[in-house]
Amino acid sequence: MPQTSDRNRRIVLASRPAGAPSPANFRLEDGALPVPAQGQLLLRTVYLSLDPYMRGRMSDAPSYTPPFPVGEVLGGGTVCRVAASQHPGFQVGDWVTGMTGWQDYALSDGAGLTPLGKLEHPSWALGVLGMPGFTAYVGLLDIGLPKPGDTVVVAGATGAVGAVVGQLAKLEGCTVVGIAGGAEKCRSAVDELGLDACVDHHGEGLRKRLAAACPKGIDIYFENVGGAVFDAVLPLLNVGARVPICGLIAHYNDTALPPGPDRLPWLLSTLLKRRIKLQGFIITDHYASRYRAFAENMGAWVKDGAVKYREDVVVGLENAPEAFIGLLSGKNFGKLVVRVGED
Amino acid sequence: MPQTSDRNRRIVLASRPAGAPSPANFRLEDGALPVPAQGQLLLRTVYLSLDPYMRGRMSDAPSYTPPFPVGEVLGGGTVCRVAASQHPGFQVGDWVTGMTGWQDYALSDGAGLTPLGKLEHPSWALGVLGMPGFTAYVGLLDIGLPKPGDTVVVAGATGAVGAVVGQLAKLEGCTVVGIAGGAEKCRSAVDELGLDACVDHHGEGLRKRLAAACPKGIDIYFENVGGAVFDAVLPLLNVGARVPICGLIAHYNDTALPPGPDRLPWLLSTLLKRRIKLQGFIITDHYASRYRAFAENMGAWVKDGAVKYREDVVVGLENAPEAFIGLLSGKNFGKLVVRVGED
Repeated sequence: MPQTSDRNRRIVLASRPAGAPSPANFRLEDGALPVPAQGQLLLRTVYLSLDPYMRGRMSDAPSYTPPFPVGEVLGGGTVCRVAASQHPGFQVGDWVTGMTGWQDYALSDGAGLTPLGKLEHPSWALGVLGMPGFTAYVGLLDIGLPKPGDTVVVAGATGAVGAVVGQLAKLEGCTVVGIAGGAEKCRSAVDELGLDACVDHHGEGLRKRLAAACPKGIDIYFENVGGAVFDAVLPLLNVGARVPICGLIAHYNDTALPPGPDRLPWLLSTLLKRRIKLQGFIITDHYASRYRAFAENMGAWVKDGAVKYREDVVVGLENAPEAFIGLLSGKNFGKLVVRVGED
Repeated sequence: MPQTSDRNRRIVLASRPAGAPSPANFRLEDGALPVPAQGQLLLRTVYLSLDPYMRGRMSDAPSYTPPFPVGEVLGGGTVCRVAASQHPGFQVGDWVTGMTGWQDYALSDGAGLTPLGKLEHPSWALGVLGMPGFTAYVGLLDIGLPKPGDTVVVAGATGAVGAVVGQLAKLEGCTVVGIAGGAEKCRSAVDELGLDACVDHHGEGLRKRLAAACPKGIDIYFENVGGAVFDAVLPLLNVGARVPICGLIAHYNDTALPPGPDRLPWLLSTLLKRRIKLQGFIITDHYASRYRAFAENMGAWVKDGAVKYREDVVVGLENAPEAFIGLLSGKNFGKLVVRVGED
């Protein structure tokens, strides 16, 4: 465990992005290292999670969580070690996970922190064993309701959530077709994650290629992308199909509605004719009821290799903005985390 | 029981409508009275049900049921009496319900017929005690999942399905706001059906008036209309709202998608942010699992007056096309049936 610095670097939201975020929307600030008062502890950030939902919180449109304030440190999930403690529940060196944001250090009174114990891969608490894995678990199992033999399509098939969805669907006995950006990701989805097929969403003829990969239609589409991928999926949805919606990364940078015609009535008609269920969900709603089952099951699957996990680790807090901008255009390969500090 | 005629009048689909149906899409034909062979029975139509789904089957676009063939008698639910029987299971004078279509008489081998026994109101088997009532029951209870205190909005509040939805939602302890066309229907929804409020979808400011009637937002929207009503409802849907979709009468005459912008991505974003469930259903999927419970419960509710029922009876098979055209623009008041023949 290294010495703490006497400075705390933080990345603040300099301005709200219009459309895709640019480096100018972020600002690296340097402040004094905070000192814990009685009942507080000082956390040293080791890993910062970068996730698509953060784009939503950079805007001030009404949403399910309040926007990040301009000029304040950006929020985000982290894995930290306790660097100093005036809190009876935590000792220096403890591993914890929490929402301490884009900074080297954070003060905490312990609220919202989860002790991690001794983990072989502490950063996995931000991925397969954390919020993205839990999102996959609830969305696929509780809303998607997979049955053996179903055809499941998952977009972002090598991403933090999608990679777990695909592997869980295989464990449930489904035929699983991934959608990913580029030949390398598609190869990995099949060879490493064990999906039955993977369709590259780059290039022409996505609809036709997806249809060819799903000869029996689609029973579950795990939606985390939107845009052209949703358009390609919709005509293939079977009677009784289920579509959990946990994200719409293709639209997070939208500044206006796309041009017409207005397909909203057509979507409703399609839902009716084919008895389709479309259901949005936000994972924070489900911790109380489902987290314990997830943690037990996923822990076992990861341990015995039934679920594999790939990380894309960027080193250095200062590189977080660029990595986040790349995340929104699919540049990462696996769960994106920033290595902020040493163990 | 009157003598049977020696002629059978039938209304056939003369041509497929483009947009709203017109009288020219229908043709009244006159044929010989069919004679039942061994194992068959002859049915005298007493009541013919007119329902919005029929508009879909007049088109040949792919849907959940095959289209009505041009030149053939139009299909539809009926309540009939047995006029002649060469079938051991049916006797002359028996009341049955089936799908025998827009005609005075029909031959049957007994398949698809349900004996009605002695009913005080045989035509109710086409409404509150039949397919529309069952649609309301499954959609509201199984998909809408009402809880006491929820705000439920139902469009077509005095229609065949909507009137049952609203009353069931009141029985479940919900606050119920109807939407209907015209002051008279709105008054009836409140005074006769017992809804808490009813908003007229004619006139300006539908969104504002609906918002004023739903100060706590909307937890369940029973969708059987689409169009401007859906547009007014969507911004008011609460987190966790459920939207069963059993019909989209506003769109049945559509011949093209409306002009832009394309609101489909915005709809998906709304579902995500507010964790909304949108689910299409077709009632024929649910008979095996849920009809028995419906028949028992609804029979009791109707008998003890907990659920009230209003019919709009048009007399004469020859008047069915005009009545059906009016149904699509909301001219009926209550469940629309055609009195085709005498008891």
